[in-house]
Amino acid sequence: LCCIARCYVHPVPGLQIFGVPGIPEITGGVDLAATIVDAAIAAGSPLADGDIVVVTSKIVSKSEGRIIELADVEPSPFAIEWSAEWDKDPAVTEVVLREAKRIVRQVGPVMITETHHGFVCANSGVDQSSSGAHGRLVVLPADPDASARRIRAGFAELGVDAAVIVSDTFGRAWREGQTDIAIGIAGMQPILSYIGQFDPHGHEFRVQAVCLADELAGAAELVKGNISRMPVGVIRGFQWDVDDDATIAPVLRDQSRDLFR
Amino acid sequence: LCCIARCYVHPVPGLQIFGVPGIPEITGGVDLAATIVDAAIAAGSPLADGDIVVVTSKIVSKSEGRIIELADVEPSPFAIEWSAEWDKDPAVTEVVLREAKRIVRQVGPVMITETHHGFVCANSGVDQSSSGAHGRLVVLPADPDASARRIRAGFAELGVDAAVIVSDTFGRAWREGQTDIAIGIAGMQPILSYIGQFDPHGHEFRVQAVCLADELAGAAELVKGNISRMPVGVIRGFQWDVDDDATIAPVLRDQSRDLFR
Repeated sequence: LCCIARCYVHPVPGLQIFGVPGIPEITGGVDLAATIVDAAIAAGSPLADGDIVVVTSKIVSKSEGRIIELADVEPSPFAIEWSAEWDKDPAVTEVVLREAKRIVRQVGPVMITETHHGFVCANSGVDQSSSGAHGRLVVLPADPDASARRIRAGFAELGVDAAVIVSDTFGRAWREGQTDIAIGIAGMQPILSYIGQFDPHGHEFRVQAVCLADELAGAAELVKGNISRMPVGVIRGFQWDVDDDATIAPVLRDQSRDLFR
Repeated sequence: LCCIARCYVHPVPGLQIFGVPGIPEITGGVDLAATIVDAAIAAGSPLADGDIVVVTSKIVSKSEGRIIELADVEPSPFAIEWSAEWDKDPAVTEVVLREAKRIVRQVGPVMITETHHGFVCANSGVDQSSSGAHGRLVVLPADPDASARRIRAGFAELGVDAAVIVSDTFGRAWREGQTDIAIGIAGMQPILSYIGQFDPHGHEFRVQAVCLADELAGAAELVKGNISRMPVGVIRGFQWDVDDDATIAPVLRDQSRDLFR
């Protein structure tokens, strides 16, 4: 009775966050939802309704064939000149430029860009590591919200109602160290707004909107790690309202409202 | 046997994150460590060795008497003029300026400052809400690392070896919504470095240093919430190495390395 009470009457309080081990190397065309569901079952922690599944963008990109062969890339004169100055591969620079709609800062060897999606990050999020072989680059998914929606729909087909976040690892202004943040979302809104709510003393809350999606992505990184091969993390026990119109758009600050761009 | 296996042989995988309810209103001189330990016991989730305890800066400030009576503040001519233009309380503006060593951006009614600690945030982190009464402001702890060390030492006196993070809620460049980040730390290093490590294909990792402290602070926000009265979150199951020389300093990007300041 005591033991039953431990397991069922008093469940673990708060959130559980765990990684999904055993995900194989992902190649183009792989059904990510089925792969994740199967791996979670094999690991003894099957997905459940209400879970939030955080998927590293790299495996999303690989499943969607978002891989560039550097040998196929013809660098522009601008890419060639800047790469020579900073000892970089001009084909890589060219891919970074093609993934960008604007260069936000270009200082020394550092290039901070705004991607076509509207993310501000180093090198347009282009990842030369873990691309499966030298001479290839993994670029961000073309539409990470659509990627997240596809994975969520795949979970639903397999009987699981889970929200999905596609995450990537970004640097920040002013602070050293990178954190995982959300670049795509499906099933839940990324931001929780407190606007118009007041504290017991009648002051409007100083915090007006919390970016849950970024906090959830960062929390999942704690179990996924960046160098372990654990590209999927699951957050269980977090309450969210189903919203199938949700996208990451509310997180992207409009340039007109941005003081640092 | 099956049930015992569930509870003890196969513990909950990954991390658990839970809030500590029942923390009373904090006033100057309160022993925060003892207050948190007692509340956790009363809630049925006592702290344990290895826990990471994330404490909202507001209650740290209150316990340290970091409260400003606005009636005691004499605004400077600069504070008076700018406040009149943007319909703000000049005494509040004066406190924001005194907590800053530099104004990073001042556009319309928005003031982004660098605090004396070196944090870049809106209004020097000054919090007019939840200050206990109108006419008072809560300012950030004078030395959040020292605050964290005191709380960690208090836990140790009560027999618990826990790391401590003092958190606050900051906005970001480029992204809407705020997230909780670390402003002070004790017992563990805030950044995990991968510099010099290589992936299976011989590429250095794109991610070179993860700011665990900020991811942990954000994860704890998911259970604390900003409007619930739950100022303490506990992260259990995350492996960390004890380092009693740790501070938040490695997270503060030097101005010479900062492209956005």
